[in-house]
Amino acid sequence: MSFVQFVVLAGGTGGARFLRGLRAAAPDADITAVVNTGDDVTMHGLRICPDLDTVVYTLGGGIDEERGWGRVGESWTVKEELAAYGADPDWFGLGDRDLATHLIRTRMLDAGYPLSAVTAALADRWRPGVTVLPMSDQRVETHVVVTDPETGRNQAIHFQEWWVRHRAALDASAFVQVGVDAARPAPGVTEAFAAADAILLAPSNPVVSIGTILGVPGLREALLASPARIVGLSPIVGGDVLRGMADRCLPVLGIEVSAEGVGRHYGARAAGGLLDAWLVHSGDTADVPGVDVVTVPLLMSSPEATAAMARAALDAAGV
Amino acid sequence: MSFVQFVVLAGGTGGARFLRGLRAAAPDADITAVVNTGDDVTMHGLRICPDLDTVVYTLGGGIDEERGWGRVGESWTVKEELAAYGADPDWFGLGDRDLATHLIRTRMLDAGYPLSAVTAALADRWRPGVTVLPMSDQRVETHVVVTDPETGRNQAIHFQEWWVRHRAALDASAFVQVGVDAARPAPGVTEAFAAADAILLAPSNPVVSIGTILGVPGLREALLASPARIVGLSPIVGGDVLRGMADRCLPVLGIEVSAEGVGRHYGARAAGGLLDAWLVHSGDTADVPGVDVVTVPLLMSSPEATAAMARAALDAAGV
Repeated sequence: MSFVQFVVLAGGTGGARFLRGLRAAAPDADITAVVNTGDDVTMHGLRICPDLDTVVYTLGGGIDEERGWGRVGESWTVKEELAAYGADPDWFGLGDRDLATHLIRTRMLDAGYPLSAVTAALADRWRPGVTVLPMSDQRVETHVVVTDPETGRNQAIHFQEWWVRHRAALDASAFVQVGVDAARPAPGVTEAFAAADAILLAPSNPVVSIGTILGVPGLREALLASPARIVGLSPIVGGDVLRGMADRCLPVLGIEVSAEGVGRHYGARAAGGLLDAWLVHSGDTADVPGVDVVTVPLLMSSPEATAAMARAALDAAGV
Repeated sequence: MSFVQFVVLAGGTGGARFLRGLRAAAPDADITAVVNTGDDVTMHGLRICPDLDTVVYTLGGGIDEERGWGRVGESWTVKEELAAYGADPDWFGLGDRDLATHLIRTRMLDAGYPLSAVTAALADRWRPGVTVLPMSDQRVETHVVVTDPETGRNQAIHFQEWWVRHRAALDASAFVQVGVDAARPAPGVTEAFAAADAILLAPSNPVVSIGTILGVPGLREALLASPARIVGLSPIVGGDVLRGMADRCLPVLGIEVSAEGVGRHYGARAAGGLLDAWLVHSGDTADVPGVDVVTVPLLMSSPEATAAMARAALDAAGV
């Protein structure tokens, strides 16, 4: 039996919702999600993988739809108790339900299981309907170079501290992938690219989600070696970021906050870039030399709208 | 300024309540609790110290008075979620509030702090009003030798599995203190004995609480080297165990389940045992050669009754 096979590069909320749409659009397809782990962090001794959890919870029906992250019906007892002890950090949204996931992950990692095996074990409960792979089993953590307002000196803080604690309000001068030199694509990633009938870049943050995934040594080469067409979806709609704070990230790399800016940043596959096709939102325009630009609605405002958007991406991939 | 100094050997619920009574009876005294850690266990990657936590929560106002262990107003979200993942073990009462304590303890132990330092750090929140010391900084875990009903073979299971999972229903043939050979009294224990004006054995389980503490190499010798009188309180009242399951433990060591049986097990200090005085409940009798037996109410039915009982123990200690 031969299934059509798709691979999606994804970050958290946006990537997870897009994956849900793709699953609905192609229920018989074999879908592999290659998920950013650069947001991962260890807090209170727990290994936390926000994007992997968001993808698995979203596809498994456990997500808080309103927030876009964490568990529905969440409570915050442990977080409050940790704060009562004065434990740092106290700004991270560590939910009680979510915490069980982190406990199991931490225990398995401590026992020597690689993150890909841990992710598979956790997904066994949630049955997301897609194969969820971390981009790498090696630890890669995005740090953000910011200027200390008091001393004027540059310092690198963990992405979560910049994103969650400071709400990306501190001006960033660079993003650094700590540990990336020793990283390799997780087991299954290269194989999924090679077997893919289409590769999609979800409308996730081009810098700290998709960019982080592409920074894993060997991953970009494996992606480009695939016979499948590579189709990206713009996370910028009408010049605005719909989720997250990509508008705080793109300028750091000199990328214009527009569908065209991101498309040009990814670039044409034929010219050393990534894209065969680039989907931009109705009303947006993008001139990306060497890339098929397709204009379709890109608002993930409902499961149906998201499925239609995924269908359009598959069309652009020629499947 | 010179304070009167008391040391109490204590297990969990009974020891904690007795300590609260002693604190009420002698509010100006400098009280040190030397607490059993043989019940300690690692579950879900968390280091759990049931007796230390019970003592600190009880004295700090955080205990669930009804249960006698764990936090008041407790919730069980993490436990339920762990069970939903199928994580073992699922029979241990791991509360959400309690879990924050375990997270901090585990993190500090992993960072290299000894248990005594961790205990002091946790107590800093609860301000128990007494110095709470683990019996040892080294890991000592009580295991119980039971006979597998299917194979007929002996096997050793962790005390918590025997106590909580099996409710002590499996016949035990021995208690083994795993790790005890490498253990030493925790910092402060020997010094507390040396400086003590009275040493009290709380009405805790004589086998798996007081017995475990006394099993730490050097601790019994330091206790006996103290100039202070040693006074024990019977945990057996009218031939019954008031808390816990000491009646399942005492026979394993051939000790009669009675105030006299336990008193004789501890023995007279003058004859190589521990006791200078032994408190038994009104109506009970005990003939323990060489020991001053004192008959007083030993029901910790109210804070006032417990304080009176502590006062009686101090009287028997001659302070």
